[in-house]
Formats: sequence, C-alpha cells, structure tokens
Amino acid sequence: MREHSGLLTDLYELTMAAGYFETRFDARATFELFVRHLPPRRNYLVAAGLEQALEFLENVDFSPEEIGFLRQHLLFSHIHDAFFDYLAKFRFTGDVWAMPEGTLVFPGEPVMRVTAPIIEAQILETYLLATLSYQTMIASKAARIVTAAQGRQVVDFSARRAHGGPASLLSARASAIGGCGGTSNTLAGQQFGIGIYGTQAHSWVMAHEDEGEAFGHFLDAFPEGAVLLVDTYDVRNAVKRIIAMGRKPAGIRLDSGDIGGDSRWARRELDRAGWKDVKVFASGDLDEYKIAELLRGGAAIDAFGVGTALGTPGDAPHMNLIYKLTQVERGGKIREAAKFSHAKVTYPGRKQVFRYRNPAGEYQSDRIALEDEPPNGGEPLLVQVMRGGRRVAPAESVGALRDRCTSSLARLPKRYRQIGRTAVYPVHYSKRLQALLEEVRKRVRRFAVK
Amino acid sequence: MREHSGLLTDLYELTMAAGYFETRFDARATFELFVRHLPPRRNYLVAAGLEQALEFLENVDFSPEEIGFLRQHLLFSHIHDAFFDYLAKFRFTGDVWAMPEGTLVFPGEPVMRVTAPIIEAQILETYLLATLSYQTMIASKAARIVTAAQGRQVVDFSARRAHGGPASLLSARASAIGGCGGTSNTLAGQQFGIGIYGTQAHSWVMAHEDEGEAFGHFLDAFPEGAVLLVDTYDVRNAVKRIIAMGRKPAGIRLDSGDIGGDSRWARRELDRAGWKDVKVFASGDLDEYKIAELLRGGAAIDAFGVGTALGTPGDAPHMNLIYKLTQVERGGKIREAAKFSHAKVTYPGRKQVFRYRNPAGEYQSDRIALEDEPPNGGEPLLVQVMRGGRRVAPAESVGALRDRCTSSLARLPKRYRQIGRTAVYPVHYSKRLQALLEEVRKRVRRFAVK
Repeated sequence: MREHSGLLTDLYELTMAAGYFETRFDARATFELFVRHLPPRRNYLVAAGLEQALEFLENVDFSPEEIGFLRQHLLFSHIHDAFFDYLAKFRFTGDVWAMPEGTLVFPGEPVMRVTAPIIEAQILETYLLATLSYQTMIASKAARIVTAAQGRQVVDFSARRAHGGPASLLSARASAIGGCGGTSNTLAGQQFGIGIYGTQAHSWVMAHEDEGEAFGHFLDAFPEGAVLLVDTYDVRNAVKRIIAMGRKPAGIRLDSGDIGGDSRWARRELDRAGWKDVKVFASGDLDEYKIAELLRGGAAIDAFGVGTALGTPGDAPHMNLIYKLTQVERGGKIREAAKFSHAKVTYPGRKQVFRYRNPAGEYQSDRIALEDEPPNGGEPLLVQVMRGGRRVAPAESVGALRDRCTSSLARLPKRYRQIGRTAVYPVHYSKRLQALLEEVRKRVRRFAVK
Repeated sequence: MREHSGLLTDLYELTMAAGYFETRFDARATFELFVRHLPPRRNYLVAAGLEQALEFLENVDFSPEEIGFLRQHLLFSHIHDAFFDYLAKFRFTGDVWAMPEGTLVFPGEPVMRVTAPIIEAQILETYLLATLSYQTMIASKAARIVTAAQGRQVVDFSARRAHGGPASLLSARASAIGGCGGTSNTLAGQQFGIGIYGTQAHSWVMAHEDEGEAFGHFLDAFPEGAVLLVDTYDVRNAVKRIIAMGRKPAGIRLDSGDIGGDSRWARRELDRAGWKDVKVFASGDLDEYKIAELLRGGAAIDAFGVGTALGTPGDAPHMNLIYKLTQVERGGKIREAAKFSHAKVTYPGRKQVFRYRNPAGEYQSDRIALEDEPPNGGEPLLVQVMRGGRRVAPAESVGALRDRCTSSLARLPKRYRQIGRTAVYPVHYSKRLQALLEEVRKRVRRFAVK
C-alpha cells in the first residue's frame, strides 16, 4: 500500500474537491478537529497522533494509476481534464495549528486547526480524523491505566489485538505517550525508541516435556532477565518448582486465575526463599478497573502488562472526533461557518484554547475563544506546527511527549484523574464566540424556505 | 514502516525463538488459531484476513538494522551469533491449513492451523492474531448489519474511525466480505476492486452562501449521481428547496435527527414531485439494531452508510482469537500439547472441522475432530493454503469471498441469523479428541510437585 496516497480518503472528499474545482470555488477554508462529548467514563483526553498526521500532510500525493482509477469512475464522467491535472501536482500547502501531543484535551476544544485551499483541506479530512482519533483514544486510555497502577510500570501488550500490524505500532506509540513504560511490540521499540519487554509465553512451557525442563532451558538461554510464566498448569506448583530448582529468575508472571491471591502467596514464597528482588508481573485481560481492584485488595504486583483493553478499549472503543468547517475566505470576504442540525451545533470562527491555572499551579478551567482574543493570563494551547505545507519544528521524541502528558496530569486536580468517577472540567466559550454563533444562526435562517 | 518486518511481533516471540535456538530445541510445532467464546450478542463469526496473513508469511524477513537492534538489547546479551545469522536468513517454510475467508466459524474451531519449525511458528503468532482477529471481527459485524438491512445496500463508511490508514483498508475489505455492497474508502476500492460510494458532506453546504447555491453548484459538477445531504440546517427546508429548484438529484442523504420520520416525509414529497426514482440514503451512527428499528418503524430508506459501528463495533470491540500450541514433533516423537490453567483448557492435536447439513441443505452441527478422523458425511472446513512456505492457490477476489459468506449465511438456520437473540449453534468435539485431552491431562499431572 502507498502510505501517503491521496486516495486514502472517503470518496466524497474527492467528489467535493472536483466540485469546488469545476465550479471555480476558489476559497481558503479553516477546519477544526474536536470531540463534542467525552467517551463514557472519561474526564479528559490526551492528544496524540500529530506526528503521523504531519508526516502524511507533508507527503500526500496522487500517483498516475490513482488518478486513472478516479477518472474511469462513472461519477467523474463529467469532470474535466484540468481537475485530474491538478491532482497530478497536488501537494498540501496549508497552515496547521495543533495541541502538542501529550496535552490534555476537553470537549469542544480543537486539537487541530487546518487553514488551506478548500480542496486540500477537504481531501485530508478522513486521514486526519482516523490518525488523531485512534492515537488520542489509546493515549487517553493509557493515562487512566497508568493512573490506576499508582507508579507501578505498565507495559503495552496490545500488538496482537491491534487492527493489523501498522495499527499496532501506533497503539504502542500512543500508549507510551499516555504514560506506559514500555511495549511488547518489537518494531515499535525500534521505530519510536520505546523500551521493549517480554520473555516467555505458555507455548514455551507446553512445548517442553515438563515445566521444570521448560524453566531450566529458558534460564540457560537467558541467565539474566528471564521472567517465567507460572500459570500454564498450576501456579503454586510452578512457583514451588522454580524455588526448588534454586535458579533465581528476574521475575515471574501471572496471567490467569486469582491473580491477587496468587501474587501475595508467591511474594511470600519468594521472600521466604530469600528472593526479595524477584519481581511479580501480572497480565491477562487487565484494565484500569481490575488493576485498581487488585491494588485495593493488596496484590503484590510490581508491573502490569495490558493488551486488549489498551489497544481496543471496551468501555470506549471509538472516539468521535469531528472535522468541521468554521470559516471560509473567498474573494477577499471572510464568512464564518456553523452547523445547526439536530443536536449537532458547531461554533464558527478560527479558535484558540486558553488554559488557566490557580495560584497553586493546578489547572482550573479552559476558555475557547477566537484566535485573536487576549489570553487574559491563560496559556494558549494551540501552536503553529505547519506553515505553507512545511513543518515549523522537528518531531519530538516519544519520551518528551510522555513527559508532557505526565506533567500535565500532575497539574490536573485529583477529582478529574479518578478513574471511577465522572467530573466535568470547566470549559467556557468566550462571549465573542457566542455572539458570532448567534450572528451565523440568523444569517442561515434568512435562507430558509418560508 | 517495513510491511513484512519480522520485528512486527511481541518481544517474547523473539526471546523464545532465541531460547529454542540456543537450547537446540529442534521441533516442528503445530499451532491453532481459534476463539474460546463468541463476543457478546454474536451467534457466529465470519472468517476473514487470510489473504493478508498469507502475504505476510510469504514475505516476512529481518533486515540487518532490525537484527542489529535486537542484538544490542540487554536481554539478548548471552545469545550467540549463530542465532542472529539464522535471523538473517529467516523465511517461513511451514504448512498452513485454514478456513477460506467468508466461512462461518464457531467457538473452538481452528480458523487456521500452522505446522512449522517451532521458531518460525512462534515468531509469526502476533501478526497472525492481529490480522485474523481484526478482519474476522469486522466481517462478522458486517454480516449482522447486512442481515438487518434486509436486502438494502449497506456501504462501509468506517475509514475515518479506523485505527489509522492501513487499518481502514482492511476494514473496507472485511466489510465487503461480510456482505457490504461498497465502501467510501477510495484506496480500498482501487486495491480490492470494491465499489466506492460518496458524494457530499456538510462542509460543502456550509462553504456556500446558502443551501440552494450549494445544491445547484453540486448538480452543475455532477449532473448524474449526485446524492444531496439535506440535514445541515433543516431537513424539510432542504428537501423542499431541491424540489422547488426542479433539478432532480440521484438521491438525498439523511445523517441526523428523526431519520425514520424524515425518510417517510421525504419519500412522499419526492414521489409527489414525480421523483419516484430519487433514492433516500441514511447514515449517522447507525448499527444493526438501529437499522432494524428504522425498518420496523416503516422507514423509507433505500441504502445505509455505516461507519463507527462497523469499523469499531461498540458491542464487541475485540475478538479474543488465540494461538495455541497443540502438537510438538521432536526427534521423531510426537507429543500432543494442551493447557489447563484456570478456565482456559485447550484441546491437543492437529484438528479438522466437519460441518453437517440436514436433508434440506441447512447447516445442522459441526464436529471438531483430529485431522485423520473420517468426515462421516461432513464437509471438511480447513483446507491447505500453504505448503513449505508457498501458497498452494492464488488469492480469491473479494467478490468471491462475499459470495461465500452470503451463501453460507443462507444455509445457516434463521434462528442463528437473528441479530437480537442469542442461539448456540451445536459444535461437538469428537470422542478421540476428548480421550486425547484426558491423556494429556494425566501426563501433565504426573509432573506436578507433590
């Protein structure tokens, strides 16, 4: 697959592009990406996916075969050659403002604002939505799981549950931004500089004649760093056997059964054997709720591996990021755009988000305003990341993005960080923005059929 | 990203590979992929993803940089050069049996069986699980949505909700296998020969001075095939306006609000204008339940677009396909393998699945047996797809896979096809398989610490 193919979009983006071209609708448009509501049980989101979005914007184009494919489609039979010539030279030339990855985001707040010739901005909608939605969803879930683990390491095990290989790389990346200390995904480790973890699976134990032989062979190959999986047949037998062998592993891993009880029992046995530094890892369909419950119950666990819940969060499996037109500039005239369909109002205008802190430095509230409104002491969250289709700054490391997330969460008052309780962080629209919405509403009403 | 990188796997697959290599564990292993339980509200699954799995198996390898990355990892510090030399020449050389895509699958039934040198089979686990799980999940959801639509066309709109660009291609493909008539995903249309659909979004309407101008411009560019989106401001005003303009579109699309009521109202208005052939399309957070409800309520809808629910099914956002060792052949001796941890028993042996029909040709029950058991009139569902690392047959077209799914569903008794009610299709394990499980259980018990 061509990674930066311009066809990686909904067909309607391309028909609209052709429509704008054919009807000489030469406009510069601003679109903003945001969520209307938080997914269930979420109090905040963690912005992620910007790097992949920018990479796409910098490289997107159409190959001759791709243009040929469109040209032969019945829908395009009345479209003139000039449009296809335009596609052959297509490049993104717009300006992009965005919240840096790792920033906390609340409903209504644009995580990205794109200003470009309307055709360009339209064609890129689908890719931007998919990329930012996905990583933001995973980073947000990761932050909750890491919160629940109370300082213990959380490792991303989601590779096998991801939506194919490329998606697995992005889920490892987004998990790290959300605070995970590492991943099982080897390629993600290589590509993004994330720590990689993992030693053995049930199959290693099952492939050997008996468990003792399996553990012995593994320690032969990995005298340091071996984490032995002890639940293939019977956890307590396996732990006793390892201790009886007298060969100290780096850790043991529990993947099923009564993980809390077994962890406490194993901890006691290991300590009794003088192996206080042997770690206890836990995995097996864990999520933030189960981790919190295990720790409340006094589980003796040093680190968690989380797969399914991280890569495909069951409590919020999608994040409905939307991409809405907020302004059109055409023939020197600026027109603000909004939408008023059933329960789906969107605010017009080019926006900025200001975040306010209390005297203790904690986040207190956000204000969504027009971009030229004064900050009044707030921190502007949207920064320019692309000018004329080129990045204005180099990519940040995943470690730097995780640090931003971690320090932002530390500034978020505790009630919003609780995983079990919903609390609504205060976000206001500025008065100018509210007045602008009403203006647009009146203008649109004038055009309604009487 | 290197699409066929051998690092696209969990690190523990590679440590186990190194462990097998270092301890000269020269075994040929059989692994089977299956689900233990159906996801909630599912009565069957639709196998999908085999083509991408085979493509990976045929091409997977390790680049010098990737090998260098592993070699410098602390865990591998005691691993000898010979293992890294082995990785440099790594190719998959095994045999693969699988259910053809579009086949109906039930719990416990292997959708794929891999027999290969144990290192190869182990390294490929993660990729196979991700690829088959994802597409099977989507195809299974698509089949339910298409069933609910009762013969009306369903188009995949999931591109913007997919887990990134590459995942969106696979969700379009799997949706088509499950019965969708097309996709909005342009690149998927080009790559897989799936029909593509889509004309305009709210942004087209919002970009224009007023709705009438927006519709007029679009009909100028697309005199045929234009489907006008009528819910940007007010559905009934928009429909009246289009009729008043006297320019007949191919269809209208409703995307929010009271879709059932608006569709009936619009149908009447369009018919009254003499536009009986103008189609009514519906979209906007639809799924099989909402579609069934709309049709029960007499909605006048000709086709449905489904996005979020198809690409990230909220009622079953993951499918826990597992990959379990079932047999090891080493030094001329065959040993069957099983797992007995807490509530997670797996059956040993190399299996085949036989499907039985009643005299009317309907599916009646399945039997999971050892591969050499007689079919007793049943249809064997696993066929050989790869021998010695090479495919034994060319890829099938997506259209052929959809036809297999459609005709299989037609043979499935109606009670299992109902979307609102759970019914358990009968699947039995053969007596020989049950006896083998007990044998293995006894052997494993012998090794337990007394």
